[in-house]
Amino acid sequence: MQLGESFEIEFSFTQDQVNDFCKISGDFNPLHWDEAFAAETPFKKPIIHGALIASVFSKVMGMDFPGSGSVYLKQVSEFKRPLFVGQTYRAYFEVVSINELKHTAEISTQVFELERGKLMVDGIATVMHATLF
Amino acid sequence: MQLGESFEIEFSFTQDQVNDFCKISGDFNPLHWDEAFAAETPFKKPIIHGALIASVFSKVMGMDFPGSGSVYLKQVSEFKRPLFVGQTYRAYFEVVSINELKHTAEISTQVFELERGKLMVDGIATVMHATLF
Repeated sequence: MQLGESFEIEFSFTQDQVNDFCKISGDFNPLHWDEAFAAETPFKKPIIHGALIASVFSKVMGMDFPGSGSVYLKQVSEFKRPLFVGQTYRAYFEVVSINELKHTAEISTQVFELERGKLMVDGIATVMHATLF
Repeated sequence: MQLGESFEIEFSFTQDQVNDFCKISGDFNPLHWDEAFAAETPFKKPIIHGALIASVFSKVMGMDFPGSGSVYLKQVSEFKRPLFVGQTYRAYFEVVSINELKHTAEISTQVFELERGKLMVDGIATVMHATLF
C-alpha cells in the first residue's frame, strides 16, 4: 500500500442496530434509544454511540483497507458532531504515514455528512500488516 | 467530580456477544470468531474487537462515571495486547484533568489483565458534562 492511498464507504445505523448495540455493550444511555428523552436534549434526536461509529473504522481496517491480516494497534476518534440514527454518512480513509521497518501505517479515519460534507468525526488509526507495509 | 477520582469495573465478552458484534458492525474478520483461523495466527485464540472493548469505555462514561448527561468528545485507545473471548479483565478510569470553563474532563481509560495486572489497553477519553465539571 502507498502513501495517499484512500478508501471510502457510506454507512448508516438503524434504531434496531443501535438498540442491539445497547444490549451488547451494556450502554443504555437513553440518548441513544429514547426518542422522548433525546428530544429534550440539544441533540433533539437519538444519536449513535461513538463506539458503534468506531466499529465502522474497525470493520474497514479488518476487512477492506488494508483488509485481512491487519492488526489494529491504536485509534484516536474525535466526535466533533453528533451522528443520528437512520442517516447515511461517508467514512473516508487515507494512508498518511508508513513505517516499513515496523510494518505499520497511520490511516486517517474521518466521517463526513453527505449533503454539505461537514466533518463529523475526525481521527487516525495505527495498523500493522506484515506484508502490505 | 474531582481530579484523581476513579472508577473500576470487571468485564468479559462471550463468543456469542462477539458474534453479535460481528453482525452489527459488519466486521467479520475471522480472527474474532473462527477458532481454527485464530489458532494459525500469533494470537492462537479468537480476540475481541477493539471497538467492542471501546464500548466498555463508552458504557462507563455514559452510565456510571461521570454517568447520565455525559457527552463523549474524544477517545484515544492503544491496543497494547490482545483481549481474548471469555476472559475477564478490569477496566480502570481516573479523572486526570478538568477544564471547568469548558465543562470537560480527561479520563484515563485502561484495561488490565486480572492475574498479573498487565496493561492491555491504554487510553484517554475527553468527556463534557454540564454540571459535574
